[in-house]
Amino acid sequence: MATQTHDPDQPVPVFFLSDSTGISAETMGNALLLQFPDLRFERTLIPFITTVEEARDVVATLDAAVDRGITPLAFTTTALDEVRLELHKTRAPLIDFFDMHMQRVEGLLGARGVRAPARLHGVGDIKRYNSRMQAVEYAIEHDDGQSVRSLEKADVVLVAPSRCGKTPTTMYLALQHGLFVANYPLVEEDLADLELPRPVRELHDRCFGITTTPARLHAVRSERRPNSTYASLPQCSSELRRAEAMYRAHDLPIIDSSAKSVEEMSTLILQVLARRNPSGRRGAVP
Amino acid sequence: MATQTHDPDQPVPVFFLSDSTGISAETMGNALLLQFPDLRFERTLIPFITTVEEARDVVATLDAAVDRGITPLAFTTTALDEVRLELHKTRAPLIDFFDMHMQRVEGLLGARGVRAPARLHGVGDIKRYNSRMQAVEYAIEHDDGQSVRSLEKADVVLVAPSRCGKTPTTMYLALQHGLFVANYPLVEEDLADLELPRPVRELHDRCFGITTTPARLHAVRSERRPNSTYASLPQCSSELRRAEAMYRAHDLPIIDSSAKSVEEMSTLILQVLARRNPSGRRGAVP
Repeated sequence: MATQTHDPDQPVPVFFLSDSTGISAETMGNALLLQFPDLRFERTLIPFITTVEEARDVVATLDAAVDRGITPLAFTTTALDEVRLELHKTRAPLIDFFDMHMQRVEGLLGARGVRAPARLHGVGDIKRYNSRMQAVEYAIEHDDGQSVRSLEKADVVLVAPSRCGKTPTTMYLALQHGLFVANYPLVEEDLADLELPRPVRELHDRCFGITTTPARLHAVRSERRPNSTYASLPQCSSELRRAEAMYRAHDLPIIDSSAKSVEEMSTLILQVLARRNPSGRRGAVP
Repeated sequence: MATQTHDPDQPVPVFFLSDSTGISAETMGNALLLQFPDLRFERTLIPFITTVEEARDVVATLDAAVDRGITPLAFTTTALDEVRLELHKTRAPLIDFFDMHMQRVEGLLGARGVRAPARLHGVGDIKRYNSRMQAVEYAIEHDDGQSVRSLEKADVVLVAPSRCGKTPTTMYLALQHGLFVANYPLVEEDLADLELPRPVRELHDRCFGITTTPARLHAVRSERRPNSTYASLPQCSSELRRAEAMYRAHDLPIIDSSAKSVEEMSTLILQVLARRNPSGRRGAVP
């Protein structure tokens, strides 16, 4: 396990090992690898390692990579003791997110962890899981103002002019957090005054206004309808200005999507919900 | 930081601290906490801690929890050195996913990490991000066989009788992995013989067959249309039998959704794609 300097032209083989989906191993491993923007990595996910035999095969794969001359990195979140111990027999360096932290958390909590495959991304609580699935259906049904039926069931209503990025954030909040999210497109007639459109007027306390920059909206709309009035910079600029005035008139939280990912926008929305209702249900999985 | 035995009736306060969304801190922290099914936790996410002043406020919050008598747990993935060092001043035990592993990875790679906020869940590579967003639109447009337009662009086509769980997996693969996924419902006439339905026939090498148990399908359909022929156990059983025969006749990979989460089904699908095309694009973020 000597320190080595990698040839930057050679990608470093990276393995993510897990007894379930490997999403946690990928998340943590990638968070670390992102700190090395000058290196290239060749990533392989090996999920669902649940038996000692499977672990042995994985060790053979890792050791074969070592023998090819470039030391791979391997990240594991495997919880099953016998699988973990088998994986640790590899000659490749193994970064075990579970072991070290588990012992510490056990000490702090004064309790022993069950050390079973966690299935953090499994079905888990079936009621909770089903409500996430219902949330996805609800989001599809209420995407882009398609249906105003049972709009009052929404936990969150995203309001914005067309192409400001409502839909992916809607889907993310539904799928990852089980929130019922509707989104409502502001069209020209909605923007004629500062009133919220009739279907969402009663729901103003659940509305969030999404905005972006005129340049970004122009670019996104131009992909769909090049050289149209709809995509023109003055039109984009005017719609955003009037939309933002509407949001401010009703004290809606405003989220700027121009430089934010769906995950970042979702986090901001969840923070607003948490502040409003500190003891309320947290959407986060699990 | 003494070991303590918690009163199981008192939830343990848990804080997830991050300089970005906190998704990594939550993922890793929750993977550990899931190993203690008998304890209750009261979770608070504090994202976007990017300045020393903000870190100082967080420390005050943590220390106030310590003073209330129940030692909280805090998980951090913060990369910024000055923020991290400030957070470590808390009297609460801090589990730092970044620090320890970062030093090890730096040693192994023979390179120094930039130690900047990673924004693993930020926009990142804009082209890649935009393709994820396009994938979400594609998924909505092609949900439930709604459109057969540009079906040939699909990376994956999920085929199944109604209510087998195609839609959430479609959305997950689109949103998290940027794959173009269409799904196609098998109706009674499709199931009359073993042929794949005409719109997906040419795409058989991208098709995955989803199945479930008759009991589960009966339960899910009964929620939608109680006491209908559609939801009856014999009908569910017959549709699934004929669908599975069709999948086998065309060598489609078969995924059983009855006890699997969308994350688990997605992982299985990605594994099939990776085996078929080892050097192909990996869907995983980033």
